[in-house]
Amino acid sequence: MLPSAHSRPIAVTMGDPAGVGPEVTAGAWMARRDQGLAPFVAIGDAAAIAAVWDGPVERVGSMADVVRTFDDALPFWHLEDSGPLTLGRPTPAGATCALHALETGIGLTRTQASAALVTGPVSKQALHGIGYTHPGQTEFIAERCGIAATNAVMMLAGPSLRVVPLTVHIPISEVPERLTVETIVGKARVVARALRRDFGIAEPQIAIAGLNPHAGEGGQLGDEEARIIEPAIDQLQSEGIAIDGPLASDSLFAPLVRARYHALLCCYHDQALAPFKALHFHDGVNLTLGLPIIRTSPDHGTAFNIAGTGQADPGPTIAAIQLASTLAASRERSCAPAK
Amino acid sequence: MLPSAHSRPIAVTMGDPAGVGPEVTAGAWMARRDQGLAPFVAIGDAAAIAAVWDGPVERVGSMADVVRTFDDALPFWHLEDSGPLTLGRPTPAGATCALHALETGIGLTRTQASAALVTGPVSKQALHGIGYTHPGQTEFIAERCGIAATNAVMMLAGPSLRVVPLTVHIPISEVPERLTVETIVGKARVVARALRRDFGIAEPQIAIAGLNPHAGEGGQLGDEEARIIEPAIDQLQSEGIAIDGPLASDSLFAPLVRARYHALLCCYHDQALAPFKALHFHDGVNLTLGLPIIRTSPDHGTAFNIAGTGQADPGPTIAAIQLASTLAASRERSCAPAK
Repeated sequence: MLPSAHSRPIAVTMGDPAGVGPEVTAGAWMARRDQGLAPFVAIGDAAAIAAVWDGPVERVGSMADVVRTFDDALPFWHLEDSGPLTLGRPTPAGATCALHALETGIGLTRTQASAALVTGPVSKQALHGIGYTHPGQTEFIAERCGIAATNAVMMLAGPSLRVVPLTVHIPISEVPERLTVETIVGKARVVARALRRDFGIAEPQIAIAGLNPHAGEGGQLGDEEARIIEPAIDQLQSEGIAIDGPLASDSLFAPLVRARYHALLCCYHDQALAPFKALHFHDGVNLTLGLPIIRTSPDHGTAFNIAGTGQADPGPTIAAIQLASTLAASRERSCAPAK
Repeated sequence: MLPSAHSRPIAVTMGDPAGVGPEVTAGAWMARRDQGLAPFVAIGDAAAIAAVWDGPVERVGSMADVVRTFDDALPFWHLEDSGPLTLGRPTPAGATCALHALETGIGLTRTQASAALVTGPVSKQALHGIGYTHPGQTEFIAERCGIAATNAVMMLAGPSLRVVPLTVHIPISEVPERLTVETIVGKARVVARALRRDFGIAEPQIAIAGLNPHAGEGGQLGDEEARIIEPAIDQLQSEGIAIDGPLASDSLFAPLVRARYHALLCCYHDQALAPFKALHFHDGVNLTLGLPIIRTSPDHGTAFNIAGTGQADPGPTIAAIQLASTLAASRERSCAPAK
């Protein structure tokens, strides 16, 4: 029998060695007692963490080592020498190490050696320079897990709200044509299932924002609400998914409104991310729904401009580890066979 | 010589008698000591306030009366009987009274009897039913002040940020074509001038958001940043206006970023209002820049569904009165002849 999620460590990839990944990983370990963090193991090049932190690091070779070590030293799964390190300057060897850490973290989590995967920030440009072809880490993880990238749904989760952008990195002018009934229905199903299974919410309440100001004001400010969003809502409701909308996005994020819903689906990138980061810049977690594994990440990039300066905030990494533990335990409960 | 802005009262129109305007006006008066409010006079139908509040009201006929009365009773500029009142149900007579209150408030402020105008929430539908042709109150005020409606610029102001939507009530699909260099330059000039004159900020720092995710990511996610926003920034900077951008709107609202700027210009309605209301739903003030008078309003509507139930929050009206006082005093200082 596998040990429960509570006793299995979390796998934390450090991301690009020249970015802030190593120092925020060390910062999270230093906060392990105050924040009650589950044991985790850092994955990457041990030299990268030594370059920015002089705390205790212990190389481990098994998950039992991680649990035994965690109180006294940062457990470290050393992969390879990533070459000479200049903070803030990504290199091909550094990108290769970041990719290998990701691959290792996925493997450990897929085989249930680790309970969940937390991914540190990578440089997409540096990865593309070594022949990586995916737009980000999520698509690679989806592929390794054997699911279509379109079924991997990004959610941003913070203490006061969870948001899901239905379209992501496309120009605003393309949003009206790219927002389809199929996209909304497909992603909303993934969200509803994840809220039940991973967040342990028996009856999830979801809201969807309108595309236009005032949710189109009855058709006076655009017809996408009636043409696209309402049919999707009808379809989802007919499947038993509790979804409200389309709601005006300028009031949807007000405290009393957002508190009514377990997740807010948004039509485009900034409709979700601008209010989210206004509220949860320091404690927001990016997570991927719809995967066979639990995967979270701190909601920031490599921040090459401040790497090694001590300015990087470990808060988002701590929040990502905490949420990963919570979700792993919840999924385990909901997937356990009835006694 | 006119009395200074500090001693002149604020004119507060109650808006639609069947909405929450009367009760939040009364609520603001009750908070006058705790909140240190300058004397103000409520304008409308005295029966509408009696219907929702049994506190002391004193009808006044001059601004001297207002100042004398304010400590002990809500000074009231009674206009007319607005007919039988059913809370939550707007009527033509109620809309007429709201319009007359607006006209009276503008007149009192234009003639400098009052230091500033605070407008309560009206029903646009009810106003249109009595032949009113303007889209909202702002356009009417601009006309009465003899300026073009396009030069009256909406700003939302809260304790941690000020936002200005550059386009307002249009479908998202029309934003890319309606956002022009001329619009940006014209509105940014009004904003820069108001920050100096009304807010007393000697060297205002302004930021403008990109239209597309990640501000277009160097042209990969849209070309409006290079084609429209950057030329506008160049023009404004050449005029000595300190404006940064285009900045990615998902990080622009983060605490440390928004704190750097005195105002954030946004390309569309929800880019400004969604993050703003996420942060300042209860203390946000809507104000109109570019007018010869100071005009603010609570950032909410008539809320017919809760009128008379005691749920309406007077906080936004209090904030609108406080901001109006501050702006009136600041504009008076900056417009005073040098001694």
